[in-house]
Amino acid sequence: MTTSWRIPPQTGRLIEVPSGSTLRVIDPFGQQISDVFAFNAADTRESLSSGRTLDNLGKYLVTTGDVLYSNRSRPMFTIGEDTVGRHDFILTPCSQATFDLLYPDHTGYHPSCLENLTKAFAPHGITADDIGTTLNVFMNVVPKEDGSIDILPGVSKAGDHIDLIAEDDLLVGVTSCSAETCNNGVLTPIDVELRP
Amino acid sequence: MTTSWRIPPQTGRLIEVPSGSTLRVIDPFGQQISDVFAFNAADTRESLSSGRTLDNLGKYLVTTGDVLYSNRSRPMFTIGEDTVGRHDFILTPCSQATFDLLYPDHTGYHPSCLENLTKAFAPHGITADDIGTTLNVFMNVVPKEDGSIDILPGVSKAGDHIDLIAEDDLLVGVTSCSAETCNNGVLTPIDVELRP
Repeated sequence: MTTSWRIPPQTGRLIEVPSGSTLRVIDPFGQQISDVFAFNAADTRESLSSGRTLDNLGKYLVTTGDVLYSNRSRPMFTIGEDTVGRHDFILTPCSQATFDLLYPDHTGYHPSCLENLTKAFAPHGITADDIGTTLNVFMNVVPKEDGSIDILPGVSKAGDHIDLIAEDDLLVGVTSCSAETCNNGVLTPIDVELRP
Repeated sequence: MTTSWRIPPQTGRLIEVPSGSTLRVIDPFGQQISDVFAFNAADTRESLSSGRTLDNLGKYLVTTGDVLYSNRSRPMFTIGEDTVGRHDFILTPCSQATFDLLYPDHTGYHPSCLENLTKAFAPHGITADDIGTTLNVFMNVVPKEDGSIDILPGVSKAGDHIDLIAEDDLLVGVTSCSAETCNNGVLTPIDVELRP
């Protein structure tokens, strides 16, 4: 039986994903980003690793068939169906510091993916320090030849999705991104389905 | 008084770097890579973060004047003099798994930067799980438009160096890389100087 949730913009959710099941992340309205991070449910010292994954794959754009590795170089997810093919795995989730450092016009508190992931994982004794570079689903990040990184509007359309097949029992945090700037100025929800 | 060490190929060293002092990493013979990782000496839950740094800088090539951030978005280093300007901050240190996964001709044990960093940090209760994406000094990594990542021979010449100015009291692990493939086939030492 498929279970589904709608994640309102600027919030997050923890989903327990058993080994072999599929987490489908859906962009119901288009151009919204979802930050995903994961821990091994049996040992939360093992977590999703951008560096291990990009190193082992020899590429920074991940899509169907690619394995996403943990910090112990063990498979955590395999990517199944992917109707977009453009996801970032280089940058960290937006945080209060992101808004303070990068958006000088901003003042005071701003919701963030790091805060929302931290809240989602907190019941399992996980803190913000443990949350590394996220898989930024539907985020359009372009490393350019001159060494700069462009963050462009996402290319996902309403209904686009990516399937993450769990290779172990996982605790997965999923957000609907909090940053106006990288979601083309409009914040919309993210839908998630857990398929056995 | 400047203290200096020679780090033989396929080994690593821990250096305690007080706030305000400079760690100079030198390539004495050219085309050798050095993996660098750091923890806050007063709280080893705070560590160097590739994702926070690249996000905050808006670029993946770091050089003179750039701040390298921790997982708490606090400055850990500022880069001083840099005679190369080409360092990778996307990939993880080579590990036993790297050799097993990426070099099918290889069998059995292989020394690695992850093993050497783990040994270096062990006296401080730090384990391999805590060591994330390293600053891969002198490593020539090129993310290409098609999403692939090229690892090219380094461009550092004999005597080239980079200065890392500590923004806090730090525990710094430094290796002379263990992987034949990304050091242009020849393994040579790395020299390090600690300048007050």
